[in-house]
Amino acid sequence: MNLSPLVTSIPENPLRALFPYAARPGMLNLASGHPSRDAYDVQGLEDAAAAAARDPGAWTYGPAAGDPGLIEAIGDFARPAPPGGKLIVTSGAQQAVELALRALAPPGSEVLLPEPIYPAILSLCASAGLRVRGYAVGAEDTALDGLAAALRAGNARAIYALPTYSNPGGETWSQSQRLRALTLCAEAGVPLIEDDPYRMLHLDSPPPPSLAELAAEVPGACVIHAGSLSKFVAPGLRLGWATGPTPILQAMQDLRQAADLQPNSFAQRVAVHYLRSGRVAGHLERVRALYAARKAALSDALHTAGFTIPQTGGGMFLFPRLPEGQQARALFDRAVAADVLIAPGPAFALPAGTSRFDDRARLCFAGLSEDLIREAAARLIAAMERTAA
Amino acid sequence: MNLSPLVTSIPENPLRALFPYAARPGMLNLASGHPSRDAYDVQGLEDAAAAAARDPGAWTYGPAAGDPGLIEAIGDFARPAPPGGKLIVTSGAQQAVELALRALAPPGSEVLLPEPIYPAILSLCASAGLRVRGYAVGAEDTALDGLAAALRAGNARAIYALPTYSNPGGETWSQSQRLRALTLCAEAGVPLIEDDPYRMLHLDSPPPPSLAELAAEVPGACVIHAGSLSKFVAPGLRLGWATGPTPILQAMQDLRQAADLQPNSFAQRVAVHYLRSGRVAGHLERVRALYAARKAALSDALHTAGFTIPQTGGGMFLFPRLPEGQQARALFDRAVAADVLIAPGPAFALPAGTSRFDDRARLCFAGLSEDLIREAAARLIAAMERTAA
Repeated sequence: MNLSPLVTSIPENPLRALFPYAARPGMLNLASGHPSRDAYDVQGLEDAAAAAARDPGAWTYGPAAGDPGLIEAIGDFARPAPPGGKLIVTSGAQQAVELALRALAPPGSEVLLPEPIYPAILSLCASAGLRVRGYAVGAEDTALDGLAAALRAGNARAIYALPTYSNPGGETWSQSQRLRALTLCAEAGVPLIEDDPYRMLHLDSPPPPSLAELAAEVPGACVIHAGSLSKFVAPGLRLGWATGPTPILQAMQDLRQAADLQPNSFAQRVAVHYLRSGRVAGHLERVRALYAARKAALSDALHTAGFTIPQTGGGMFLFPRLPEGQQARALFDRAVAADVLIAPGPAFALPAGTSRFDDRARLCFAGLSEDLIREAAARLIAAMERTAA
Repeated sequence: MNLSPLVTSIPENPLRALFPYAARPGMLNLASGHPSRDAYDVQGLEDAAAAAARDPGAWTYGPAAGDPGLIEAIGDFARPAPPGGKLIVTSGAQQAVELALRALAPPGSEVLLPEPIYPAILSLCASAGLRVRGYAVGAEDTALDGLAAALRAGNARAIYALPTYSNPGGETWSQSQRLRALTLCAEAGVPLIEDDPYRMLHLDSPPPPSLAELAAEVPGACVIHAGSLSKFVAPGLRLGWATGPTPILQAMQDLRQAADLQPNSFAQRVAVHYLRSGRVAGHLERVRALYAARKAALSDALHTAGFTIPQTGGGMFLFPRLPEGQQARALFDRAVAADVLIAPGPAFALPAGTSRFDDRARLCFAGLSEDLIREAAARLIAAMERTAA
């Protein structure tokens, strides 16, 4: 079979490879970034679905850019298109990032990705024929020297960043790191794609302004911003959005129309009714309290067992350093035997397939109840102690 | 702005360019391939949506290949994956075609397209960096010599075909043309992508078996089959599917996962409940009767006015030859002034932007009631007679 080299070059997604383990009865899953069922406002969504099913536009074709009602609702809820800009609805933030990368970077060109990296981004770069170069974000005082170095070293067409409650790291770029990143972009004339799906999930104070908001203060900086309903409404709606300068967003819309014509009309109507229902603020408060308690439970248990836990102000993930001498891939096998699933650090390595970050594991605190989180942590710690013995 | 040449090469879609005209009050739209609201089973869809909203999997992530319940329901309703094959759910048949082309044909390679061509296929080829070569289907007795010649002339990586109630032509390949196409594919070792969204909309006797079904009889023939719920359930669900040999379908799934992760979980649950509701057979009978009457009304009016109307056994389109001396693009302007919208033949030209097929227009008989179809035909004919005068 003669397949395109672009598709045969796609690395296996190490997170999707965990799905069979996750389906085992009795397995407690700390590996996947899936909200738990009690973190959806099921009643609100059912009501929105019933209302949407009666909308005239629910069952027919619609604009490639998205349902005008949803574009307006997203603008009210998150952030409208900037002046001179445009907002398009996408099938999740992932499609927004994919369209932005393909619009900006032709096959064979280079893009910059943070290390560690969410592996789906590697898959989409491979499928678009893009070369990737990593950059270290580093601590606040290193002021993104890694990004500056990567920009000097190559000939990048775009920078990808997840600066707020990152995946897997959980860290958030400070205001000064954000302004530094925008200055570097502007100096190099390279657009930046800001993946921002977790912004609504702040567990204490709200995060700093997005790079897209700050871009107005940095002449020449160009940001394409990707948002998502998956993490604060429901992943099953498969809806996200992108904003940015009109020429780029129009190009993304053209690519989207060529790929799959338009966003799902019916799911968009459900989202409009839900975002307009008056329930979202209360729902978000409830989810934030739920996740904050789960994060604290996981964090406390791991800290006591000797994990080093970086500060995380929101999102869904911890990316702790394992206690001295532990290796994540070895621990993964013992953990599976003890019915708990973790995402070993090398799943986020760049280059993919190396053993980088084998002293770390990504743990999602969103998917299990507080009691189950404690049980999962206890199983993991017991498995670790057996490894050490 | 430094955009990728793949996106700047996308030709304007001349059908989507008609949308502003279609929105004018009082305009009767014969141009767009949109089912009318009375061709949806709204009650059945509302019930399915209410049931889907209560499903545990409705609001969360799911498999990249699609909801197992929907894969099974499509298999029962249309055709399951062939032995040794695989079925994946897609965002409409268009995404199925796009994924198949990208899986088989790397940027810079050539694919074969029928003339005239549905222009969205040109957009997706451009966005994937593919060169296109046209082939004429011709009358039955020419036995696809055009395809044979195109295969000899180039170095094609894939053949695209829409052999059943084609868009725009409305024609259906005979059994012998189908077998001839499969033999040509097998001899050349080139896979064929069969776009088959209109199969359920037969207006008299059912169509011949699909190329995918017949492929079992032709050793070496390789067919990827794309189906859709858009034309017989509802376009607003944005769901289609692809079947074919597992290695190609797995590659398509990998591309899909990289592009937008997975199909819409909630829309898939709605489709499962609807396909299992027992309402589909009755709904299809009603829609076929509706469309048959509309087709007859349009056909009769145009025939009387001197149009030459090729035989069309189903689907949604007529692609008549205009009366002697008429040109479609000139007629388009007069028709718009008379509040009726047509898709001029050159919208389907290959190469795009040429004036091929300017003696034809694509007219959709699905979108308007019988009375409005008659009114639209009367306006078009009056506009034409004014052009001639």
